[in-house]
Amino acid sequence: MTVHPFDAAISLAPQPDGSALGATSPAYWNMIGPYGGITAAVVTQAVMQHPQRLGEPLALTINYAAAVTVGPFRVRAQPARTNRSTQHWRVELVQDDGAGGESVSTTASLVTATRRDSFADSDVPMPAVPRPGEIARVDRSASGVAWLEQYDIRPVAGDIPTRWDGQIADSTSQLWMRDHPPRPLDFPALAALADLFFPRVWLRRALRVPVGTVSMTVYFHADDAALAATGAGHLLGQARGQGFRHGYFDHSGQLWNEAGLLLATTHQVVYFKG
Amino acid sequence: MTVHPFDAAISLAPQPDGSALGATSPAYWNMIGPYGGITAAVVTQAVMQHPQRLGEPLALTINYAAAVTVGPFRVRAQPARTNRSTQHWRVELVQDDGAGGESVSTTASLVTATRRDSFADSDVPMPAVPRPGEIARVDRSASGVAWLEQYDIRPVAGDIPTRWDGQIADSTSQLWMRDHPPRPLDFPALAALADLFFPRVWLRRALRVPVGTVSMTVYFHADDAALAATGAGHLLGQARGQGFRHGYFDHSGQLWNEAGLLLATTHQVVYFKG
Repeated sequence: MTVHPFDAAISLAPQPDGSALGATSPAYWNMIGPYGGITAAVVTQAVMQHPQRLGEPLALTINYAAAVTVGPFRVRAQPARTNRSTQHWRVELVQDDGAGGESVSTTASLVTATRRDSFADSDVPMPAVPRPGEIARVDRSASGVAWLEQYDIRPVAGDIPTRWDGQIADSTSQLWMRDHPPRPLDFPALAALADLFFPRVWLRRALRVPVGTVSMTVYFHADDAALAATGAGHLLGQARGQGFRHGYFDHSGQLWNEAGLLLATTHQVVYFKG
Repeated sequence: MTVHPFDAAISLAPQPDGSALGATSPAYWNMIGPYGGITAAVVTQAVMQHPQRLGEPLALTINYAAAVTVGPFRVRAQPARTNRSTQHWRVELVQDDGAGGESVSTTASLVTATRRDSFADSDVPMPAVPRPGEIARVDRSASGVAWLEQYDIRPVAGDIPTRWDGQIADSTSQLWMRDHPPRPLDFPALAALADLFFPRVWLRRALRVPVGTVSMTVYFHADDAALAATGAGHLLGQARGQGFRHGYFDHSGQLWNEAGLLLATTHQVVYFKG
């Protein structure tokens, strides 16, 4: 049986001190480091497989402090506080600094929680859009960006501009997305998909400027049952820019499964040049 | 000269080990702990006054792991990584656990950044609403909740229901807000104002159920100049619920100054009962 590239990328070997060892995956390489989503998945996985974990992911914040470099890394996930229904995790990803010490590339917090039945509804219903079967998977192999090959992306609206003419447009995007090849959804994969939106500033300005995510937050509304019901189906992602100022912008987004269930909401703030 | 209650509440005494000591303020007390916004302000202030700080706040995530109890607390703020234009802070608020040890009540991360001129715009223009002078400050002194007295709140739309009849309504709120008495805006005050929205689930259900914020994120779009231009004026806050499920909901919000400049965006996920 072939291991899915996503499972290979988030594979972590537990160490006696409670940390876990992993290594960067060429399949999820971006320009100068791994795809930010795969790092979010690694952070999530470190907590998922930790023997002290209680409950399921509820709120993830990941801060991209520096590019992860090619090779091995260590993830430290520690519960800072455990309550009856929530557990607060501190996570960091470190690498050898080449001088006998460690360099912190990523800091994160993850709140896990036990879920229970409650009032349930959504103020962000899934927009009416064509089904994933009606839209072709976009071919971005010519981009030379490895991680894009690991996703099935079907743009609905607000795709990356094809003419970089500096025209200012609306910054809302909608796209169907899933792992490629398809893989049953779990929390690490959902965390990774939350980072799939290309930079809003590219759309807003129709200008391809250098960018880098500084911090991303994901709130998980899905429980295990919702993940199982979603399976390897597509998710509809929607994101919209908010403020663009002083070299940083933020966006706010939502992810639904094909049945229209809100699985996660996400926000991020991104550095941009120009 | 009288010290503003906000300044008293966020006053921190630096310690030789780099931590800082503070104490809870009766003026900002909520039901079973301090107003979450004042804790966000304390976390922000700990970084603002830290001698190693570079740049201004860009992205704050605060995780409310447990209620802060009445009395003294210690804030530890440490830079996990310092880059040329960003600095990644880990912050925690701890209290004596009564058994010779420490209890973590709050974990947080704050990214500070140097700002520079860039393309600037907003995809979330301030909605057209009546000016603050046209709306009376709401009197919530009868609520018996101390921290509400420290704010000038002028509801525009989506105020706390006056009839708790279980009617499901839209969960968007708009309100003018500022410190009371007025105080020139700074980063800690902006962080505190970001938590001012009453729980969306109360509005959505017109039902007053027990709630508690689990995690809040604030992205600061304001720089020092924008804060100075805002002064002691009102901010317009807008928040809207997203998902409500399994005992948790999240909302997404924006804060503008009277001139319509987007000062911050904010998100939070909240526990609710029922």
